[in-house]
Amino acid sequence: MNELKIFAPATIANVSCGFDVLGLCLDTVGDEMIIRKIAEKGIKITKLVGQDLPMETDKNVAGVAGLTMLEKLDLNHGFEIEIYKNIKAGSGIGSSAASSAGTVWAMNELLGKPFTAKELVSFAMEGEKLASGTAHADNVAPALLGDFTLIRSYTPLDIIKIPAPSKLYATVIHPQIEVKTSDSRSVLKQNISLKESIIQIGNLGGLISGLYTSDYDLIGRSLHDEIVEPLRSILIPGFKEVKESAIACGALGAGISGSGPSIFALSKGKEMAEKVAKTMTETYKTLNIDYDVHVSKINSKGCRIIG
Amino acid sequence: MNELKIFAPATIANVSCGFDVLGLCLDTVGDEMIIRKIAEKGIKITKLVGQDLPMETDKNVAGVAGLTMLEKLDLNHGFEIEIYKNIKAGSGIGSSAASSAGTVWAMNELLGKPFTAKELVSFAMEGEKLASGTAHADNVAPALLGDFTLIRSYTPLDIIKIPAPSKLYATVIHPQIEVKTSDSRSVLKQNISLKESIIQIGNLGGLISGLYTSDYDLIGRSLHDEIVEPLRSILIPGFKEVKESAIACGALGAGISGSGPSIFALSKGKEMAEKVAKTMTETYKTLNIDYDVHVSKINSKGCRIIG
Repeated sequence: MNELKIFAPATIANVSCGFDVLGLCLDTVGDEMIIRKIAEKGIKITKLVGQDLPMETDKNVAGVAGLTMLEKLDLNHGFEIEIYKNIKAGSGIGSSAASSAGTVWAMNELLGKPFTAKELVSFAMEGEKLASGTAHADNVAPALLGDFTLIRSYTPLDIIKIPAPSKLYATVIHPQIEVKTSDSRSVLKQNISLKESIIQIGNLGGLISGLYTSDYDLIGRSLHDEIVEPLRSILIPGFKEVKESAIACGALGAGISGSGPSIFALSKGKEMAEKVAKTMTETYKTLNIDYDVHVSKINSKGCRIIG
Repeated sequence: MNELKIFAPATIANVSCGFDVLGLCLDTVGDEMIIRKIAEKGIKITKLVGQDLPMETDKNVAGVAGLTMLEKLDLNHGFEIEIYKNIKAGSGIGSSAASSAGTVWAMNELLGKPFTAKELVSFAMEGEKLASGTAHADNVAPALLGDFTLIRSYTPLDIIKIPAPSKLYATVIHPQIEVKTSDSRSVLKQNISLKESIIQIGNLGGLISGLYTSDYDLIGRSLHDEIVEPLRSILIPGFKEVKESAIACGALGAGISGSGPSIFALSKGKEMAEKVAKTMTETYKTLNIDYDVHVSKINSKGCRIIG
């Protein structure tokens, strides 16, 4: 096998009370990539369609993630990568993570799986470091492992895959506005009250319990973020209306996807998730802001071979 | 049925990363109580053996918890209570909670179970309010529900029971020193860094995942408390040595039980828990501090009828 065509999924990081520790994998939104063994050593990006991103290996997240993996190997060949981006950069659903994760996942497949999923996460994190300055795992981990992932610890890296109940669906709306990562970071407080932290911990515990027991109501009751959402949501026009309308429509809960501007809702069943999508779009129609909207079950596998 | 003899279990609150949200129920340590219907209305404490505690109904946690339940009922009779304390007051393994929980649990049984477990928790919390000034649920919830309990929220009260893996055992050592509740509260910081909170959340998520999947290693890796333990452990002589020796001996992890001074360890299997008990006692022998030590599986039921 010298070539693979793969689907590299979009992901939702944070998931309300899971700020900086939780992520989930989408199934109907993602990039396509072709990864091919070539005689020349190293990594070459030969095609990049759909987004205006650098193609130089060391300036592209896919290139950097791939190079990080290559450093651990002693190969007499290299890889070339074609990237067909469907996930918009800066949308808040893991655009860079999909490219990083897809690259290392496909390379690992082509090489006969020398690396564990956890090792792949650590390679892909180097792509995230290039994209955002921080080697965070909350998008690359679900893109590689599927389902929900919990980052228990970074030192040492300890990622737990948590199965999603079969009827859990995500709706994601991406309002086409730019929220600078620097802005979404600068609004965060460096200190919080112990009381706020305890509320967040209670909800995170409830959410994880709800996932293991397929208790959709508990999942819904737990989808609160008292710490980050109140600050970051200010940067997203219409956030409050979209969230409230989604919940009023029947969503289990809603919040900011990653650092925004995308907003996600979780629902029980595809039908409800589609109804929620319709309701969420109404707000942006009123505000005259362009948007993309996606409905997806939770992807239990992560990256996959297609075509 | 006019009379019940029950076992009211000791409990471990907080459980390291679960500060203020988690608790677990013990099986071999607890009080015995007799609760009897009597013609006279109200609650009477007729016997209190083993600890020097007030017997006036409104000054005794069992009395107050019982009265709180009675307020919700229109009974033409009352109850008398005999309490045989085995759990020492101030030990940090839920002495007051056992009395409050035992009372309302037994009354509910005698009345044909008019109340849900959650309602019983809210009654028993009033006993805790008398004992410590705060109507906290982290001991009464596991005493009433068994297993591990998570307090997702207080407003509204939302308690989740989380099953413990069958081979999970607790070792608890109670050094016979007094730690004033006011001291163990005053050392707490009111504000913490967002970073500390995220570490705690990751571990709490890991611990809950480990419980659902019977992943003992993950339970062990998650038993850390970066926020409260470093502050409160200063009040417990020998804490660091006891904790380190327990883990070196093979315990999955160890920490402060409730607000101390008891120290708990969790182990896989009874044999290991007993080995850990032996190791933990060595430290207090060296320090010439008297101690009680208990080994117990996790009690999956909570209060129970005996005799």
